[in-house]
Amino acid sequence: MSPHPRLSLNQATIRYADLPTALHITRETGIDSIGLWREPVAQVGLSTAAAMVADSGLRVSSLCRAGFFTAADDRLRRIALDDNRRAITETAALAAAGADGSAAVLVLVAGGLPDGDRDLPRARTRAQEAVAALVDDAIAARVRLAIEPIHPLYAADRGVISTLAQALDIAEQFPSDVVGVLIDTFHVWWDPHLPEQIHRAGRSERIAGYQVCDWITPLPPDALLARGMMGEGHIDFPTITQLITQAGYTGDIEVEIFNQAIWDADPADVANRTAKAFDAHVGL
Amino acid sequence: MSPHPRLSLNQATIRYADLPTALHITRETGIDSIGLWREPVAQVGLSTAAAMVADSGLRVSSLCRAGFFTAADDRLRRIALDDNRRAITETAALAAAGADGSAAVLVLVAGGLPDGDRDLPRARTRAQEAVAALVDDAIAARVRLAIEPIHPLYAADRGVISTLAQALDIAEQFPSDVVGVLIDTFHVWWDPHLPEQIHRAGRSERIAGYQVCDWITPLPPDALLARGMMGEGHIDFPTITQLITQAGYTGDIEVEIFNQAIWDADPADVANRTAKAFDAHVGL
Repeated sequence: MSPHPRLSLNQATIRYADLPTALHITRETGIDSIGLWREPVAQVGLSTAAAMVADSGLRVSSLCRAGFFTAADDRLRRIALDDNRRAITETAALAAAGADGSAAVLVLVAGGLPDGDRDLPRARTRAQEAVAALVDDAIAARVRLAIEPIHPLYAADRGVISTLAQALDIAEQFPSDVVGVLIDTFHVWWDPHLPEQIHRAGRSERIAGYQVCDWITPLPPDALLARGMMGEGHIDFPTITQLITQAGYTGDIEVEIFNQAIWDADPADVANRTAKAFDAHVGL
Repeated sequence: MSPHPRLSLNQATIRYADLPTALHITRETGIDSIGLWREPVAQVGLSTAAAMVADSGLRVSSLCRAGFFTAADDRLRRIALDDNRRAITETAALAAAGADGSAAVLVLVAGGLPDGDRDLPRARTRAQEAVAALVDDAIAARVRLAIEPIHPLYAADRGVISTLAQALDIAEQFPSDVVGVLIDTFHVWWDPHLPEQIHRAGRSERIAGYQVCDWITPLPPDALLARGMMGEGHIDFPTITQLITQAGYTGDIEVEIFNQAIWDADPADVANRTAKAFDAHVGL
């Protein structure tokens, strides 16, 4: 059985594979789309990466990731915004190199509290201001910014935008083709307001991406790697996928798993398991 | 300098001390109030524990904890409710034994998803039904049930009630002297709706307890022990304490810290450090 036509393999799931290997494995597995990461792209350089993507015949579903723009210090904030502008350029180039149906979507993770800073509301305001500062660049490059709500587990150190409602509050200040949201089951599955906020995201046409992976217990020692293959944890994927579908999302669905055991496995095997778990559990 | 008169030392902070030791250390440190746990009470038996509490001259600020009533299986659910009823009895006896100003407050942690069950909304409904089933017992014993919202980090395996809004949605169905909420900074600090929900809790007179401890990073390998002494992490205590005060809460404030290094330290030293950190950081 061939993989689902809307499945996209996010590179983070096979983290130790370099870009040519990741493209090769994705194609060989019969998966039509890939979610790229900036680090493996940078390893080969942007123009080489774009040529590799074009050769692969794969769609590009997103570029992960930029953001991390909550610094209170002006100089650090400018450095972060400049890096985000480079990421916008990269997104445009890679999506243009991808097959028809590629999405010029740049995933934004807000970043955490600056060292010693306990003012969470103000950090959230700075994240919002940073998105505003990037909108003109995104429009010029025809790139869509996708704000990713990040599980409250990471509010201190990774992402101060904790809920889909917060991400939408920011996104809806801008045109929908310029700023949307990325919905990752791992980050939002617990949210009692999830159904109504996915409906809202649909009404305002904000769903720029949908990522799946499972919430596993007990949490592994490194909470950053606390993600599992679909079916191994507690998330009710069919219900969330149905909400996403009802909200009008028709794009690729990425599987993005940070998990040491999965990273340590053979990446081709992981790609195969991913395709099977996607069919069995995601509820498309 | 003597400890703050509203400080209560929750027994979990000095977990390896038995009940007589915990009472002794609390009093010797000059702390006037203690938050009790059921396990060390059970070790000596309820009537002995009550006599020890009476002898100590300390106030009792709460009993931790009951709840864990999200089982889908009827038999398991009945067992859980029976255990909660015993906890109500214990709460009444211990609070009656405590000094004037003791609070007959039983802390309820909802419990997680049953094994293999991915229906989070239904588990939340069962938690609500379980509270309803306990209300008459609480009224008869003059005990106040305090629903504790639990960080979304634990939604799968510890507590399906994730936000203060959810806890209030349940509590507000019952008289305010029978069902309230317990607000623990660790569990709620990330919530973008925290200020408005604390105001709401004040308006409906629902704040049955306030617990403080810090959110530290990186998260320790055991996420259950990811709590720090106030001042060691990212939480803005003065702002939250001010909200709690504005909401009319005048009761004891418990310090409850699950942290292996703190448990491994000398409990008398920990009690002293707790009193100092409380003065320095909590913002009373």
